[in-house]
Amino acid sequence: MNIAWENFDSLDAYKKLLSLKGQVNLQKDLNSQRVASYSVPMASGLVYNYASKQVNAQILKVLQELSDEAQLTEKFQSLYEGEVINTGENRKVLHHLVRGQLGKDVTYEGKNGFAFYKAQEDAIASFADKVHSGSVANAKGEKFTTVVQIGIGGSDLGPRAMYLALEEWAVKNNSMKMKAKFISNVDPDDASAVMASVDPAKSLFVLVSKSGTTQETLANELFVKDFLKKEGLNPSQHMVAVTSETSPLANNPEYLASFYIDDFIGGRFSSTSAVGGAVLSLAFGPKVFASFLEGAHEADKTAKNTDIVKNPALLDALIGVYERNVQGYPSTAVLPYSQALSRFPAHLQQADMESNGKQVNRFGKPVDYATGPVIFGEPGTNGQHSFYQLLHQGTDVIPLQFIGFTSNQSGKDVDVEGSTSQTKLCANLAAQIVAFAQGTSDANPNKNFPGGRPSSLIYGKQLTPQALGTLLAHFENKIMFQGFVWNVNSFDQEGVQLGKKLTKKVLSGDMDGALKSYAALLGV
Amino acid sequence: MNIAWENFDSLDAYKKLLSLKGQVNLQKDLNSQRVASYSVPMASGLVYNYASKQVNAQILKVLQELSDEAQLTEKFQSLYEGEVINTGENRKVLHHLVRGQLGKDVTYEGKNGFAFYKAQEDAIASFADKVHSGSVANAKGEKFTTVVQIGIGGSDLGPRAMYLALEEWAVKNNSMKMKAKFISNVDPDDASAVMASVDPAKSLFVLVSKSGTTQETLANELFVKDFLKKEGLNPSQHMVAVTSETSPLANNPEYLASFYIDDFIGGRFSSTSAVGGAVLSLAFGPKVFASFLEGAHEADKTAKNTDIVKNPALLDALIGVYERNVQGYPSTAVLPYSQALSRFPAHLQQADMESNGKQVNRFGKPVDYATGPVIFGEPGTNGQHSFYQLLHQGTDVIPLQFIGFTSNQSGKDVDVEGSTSQTKLCANLAAQIVAFAQGTSDANPNKNFPGGRPSSLIYGKQLTPQALGTLLAHFENKIMFQGFVWNVNSFDQEGVQLGKKLTKKVLSGDMDGALKSYAALLGV
Repeated sequence: MNIAWENFDSLDAYKKLLSLKGQVNLQKDLNSQRVASYSVPMASGLVYNYASKQVNAQILKVLQELSDEAQLTEKFQSLYEGEVINTGENRKVLHHLVRGQLGKDVTYEGKNGFAFYKAQEDAIASFADKVHSGSVANAKGEKFTTVVQIGIGGSDLGPRAMYLALEEWAVKNNSMKMKAKFISNVDPDDASAVMASVDPAKSLFVLVSKSGTTQETLANELFVKDFLKKEGLNPSQHMVAVTSETSPLANNPEYLASFYIDDFIGGRFSSTSAVGGAVLSLAFGPKVFASFLEGAHEADKTAKNTDIVKNPALLDALIGVYERNVQGYPSTAVLPYSQALSRFPAHLQQADMESNGKQVNRFGKPVDYATGPVIFGEPGTNGQHSFYQLLHQGTDVIPLQFIGFTSNQSGKDVDVEGSTSQTKLCANLAAQIVAFAQGTSDANPNKNFPGGRPSSLIYGKQLTPQALGTLLAHFENKIMFQGFVWNVNSFDQEGVQLGKKLTKKVLSGDMDGALKSYAALLGV
Repeated sequence: MNIAWENFDSLDAYKKLLSLKGQVNLQKDLNSQRVASYSVPMASGLVYNYASKQVNAQILKVLQELSDEAQLTEKFQSLYEGEVINTGENRKVLHHLVRGQLGKDVTYEGKNGFAFYKAQEDAIASFADKVHSGSVANAKGEKFTTVVQIGIGGSDLGPRAMYLALEEWAVKNNSMKMKAKFISNVDPDDASAVMASVDPAKSLFVLVSKSGTTQETLANELFVKDFLKKEGLNPSQHMVAVTSETSPLANNPEYLASFYIDDFIGGRFSSTSAVGGAVLSLAFGPKVFASFLEGAHEADKTAKNTDIVKNPALLDALIGVYERNVQGYPSTAVLPYSQALSRFPAHLQQADMESNGKQVNRFGKPVDYATGPVIFGEPGTNGQHSFYQLLHQGTDVIPLQFIGFTSNQSGKDVDVEGSTSQTKLCANLAAQIVAFAQGTSDANPNKNFPGGRPSSLIYGKQLTPQALGTLLAHFENKIMFQGFVWNVNSFDQEGVQLGKKLTKKVLSGDMDGALKSYAALLGV
């Protein structure tokens, strides 16, 4: 395959797209026909609806040309077939492979990638079954009831968001095997609060660090070990590691077991690897985790489609590029109408902003166009009573990503004034989409709603493990496609290095100037 | 007092300010002298440091002229002395009065405002003492151990953020009287999960709705009442209300007690009123709540100062205006290096975006300048492993608000490689400020950090109840001053109305067009 990595603004489609600014007037153009036709099936029964996005047939045609000219699906293929796409770090990008093989075999370092990841999933499943049956238990022979993940960034946000997303579903479906908690921040009050909330004798800790050298995670590991020792417990009987085979945490007798990823799983894309697999399999059982992977794999398959209106992740990515580079919108809000997705926006904030918040292209040359936007969000209806005021009537337009489900997870509900809470939730969601798109005019200018605020809607019957896998993979693939368009390397994160370097200077006392002055203010 | 409400762009200072774009080069200009001198004491031992903001003596001089010309402190005075500042709703704005009187007596509706609010605080204190002593108890005579707040928006975000901010402090200082939980979302899975996590027989519920008609809150009230009844409990012995004296929840035998606010306490500014007072006094005891109010009142007093470099909230507001309207930055990140402040950014997101996300001035005329920015944030160091990549190396500049403390709350810590976790936390914070401001150049352009990314730092010894009050009031006052500059009404929220209206249409079945189509997709 002959792939050209060109800057976005060097493409023919770029100039064509710029000429199509402000073409769609949602206030007038949104109607039932659009809602019916601007719709793409995802996987696991989810649907991506873009009727309230500012696109039309002409814009979609140019977005297809852009996709073809930038070889977006070819780039995806070369990624999942093992090319070194993360050129800055000289690494393959293989998180798709942990949930299924999309193309030809990927072999490296004398191993088959898919087989390696599958073996880790199986090892975790076998270990989780032993924990659940009690054949792996504490010193007194009691079953472990709680799993506590110790990790930060990608080893925390994704797995935590996924756990919260399935907790109520698992309770309802008799799949709740162990409660999960998470320790991430180096602020010792984080570990302190979590340790006070668990029964340490019945807790199993999952230490997650690919390199085995993450400052925060090692500090929290020691915090937990000290705590366990003070309780008369042996930490090595309470702790497993998820790491790379070359890390100091690998094959280490200090851990009950170690499970592996390799350098080709980036932190923010690791929820479907052992990083999410250990905690989720322990919490909900291996079958639930397998179903989550299946949903992700099905979504990955749809991302291979070259036709943009049959490829929801690709279409979502391209519409986002139109909004960012043509319409000039600087941020995007993610608004799930599902309390279970309360931390999903925080996970996407990392996945998106860490991947595409770049100002040089993959060859290190500065780019002359905007790349990744700010991502933020909170669940609806909560957000309606918070920042929606600015979304409706602020001076900037902020594109919106809504997510909603017909049924809730717990099956519990209440009827007030002729409707259930779940019905109210969905009614609010439908109402908001239309209010943002169409607005309304009022004699009182303070009650005037300009409308023209674009949104898309991902919807389905219920947030199941499989639907969650599809949802996660959708956004991972969207981010990847946008990175391809902007010609940035979405898989490194050099922007975190300078802070680490200066932190070391502070801790070693080798500092001067403003750094020394700021450290002094903070008592260091 | 003769006050002129003029648009920002009609002021002489506006044009002067526009001519001062890009004057400060933080990469070169930041040094120890700036760190020492660009500093303002707040209250409660907190300090606002703005050495890494893009201001200099000339810009500060024009910002002082702007403050004088726009009569910002005079407007604040007229607000706290009871003028009808919320003109759209024809209401006074009296949240400052719940924590102390700043000027002359405010009397209305035959009452003294301060005395009214103080009486509510005292009534809550007396009730909380009875709950803690067990003289108010459940039907079996057992003490209540948990308080659950039911509310949404301002009745949730602020009180929840304040509770989380003081939980570890209270444990350490023997002030933990009752655990608090919160139910907000109309998604029934929210109430379902919270109810599964408490012992209902020993739980006291605080229902918070000023109007007594909030859809989500009433649905959740019924959810909880049904739950209690199924457990054989009498809801009226488990529930108190915080509401206005004219609401259906007032003086209602369905509640153990009712505590009152009035129309002059806006939801997003209600944490220091009975809305926050009930849950916080129950959780931590009335003395802790009084100390929190004292910290807020002390901050309010500093906000009266006409000299901008002696008025941290005013200065912070003006620098924010410079960043928004002169430098053109569309969003701001709030980054507390304190796990206790994990939900403080979500509270500020409401407080700020709901107040100043407006496109008409207080007379209903469209404004020609940008108003409130997008606000988002997560605690450090977590954010460093997430979205900081974009903050350092993205194509947009995003101003930052750091917050940090010398000591943690729990007093627990661990030493790894010669430093405690708390020291690492503060070292990371100092390092980030300097990395953002100064950047660094590298032969590898991918490792190049442009710097020039402005931040301010609020710091102190420890996050105590009093310090938290100061921190909260600082941002409330900052938002108020910015609203004055932009000449918007920061105290109404008409932007939430259209969604409510369309939701009613969906629920009543009186809908057509796109609204009907979207509702159908969601099963309504």
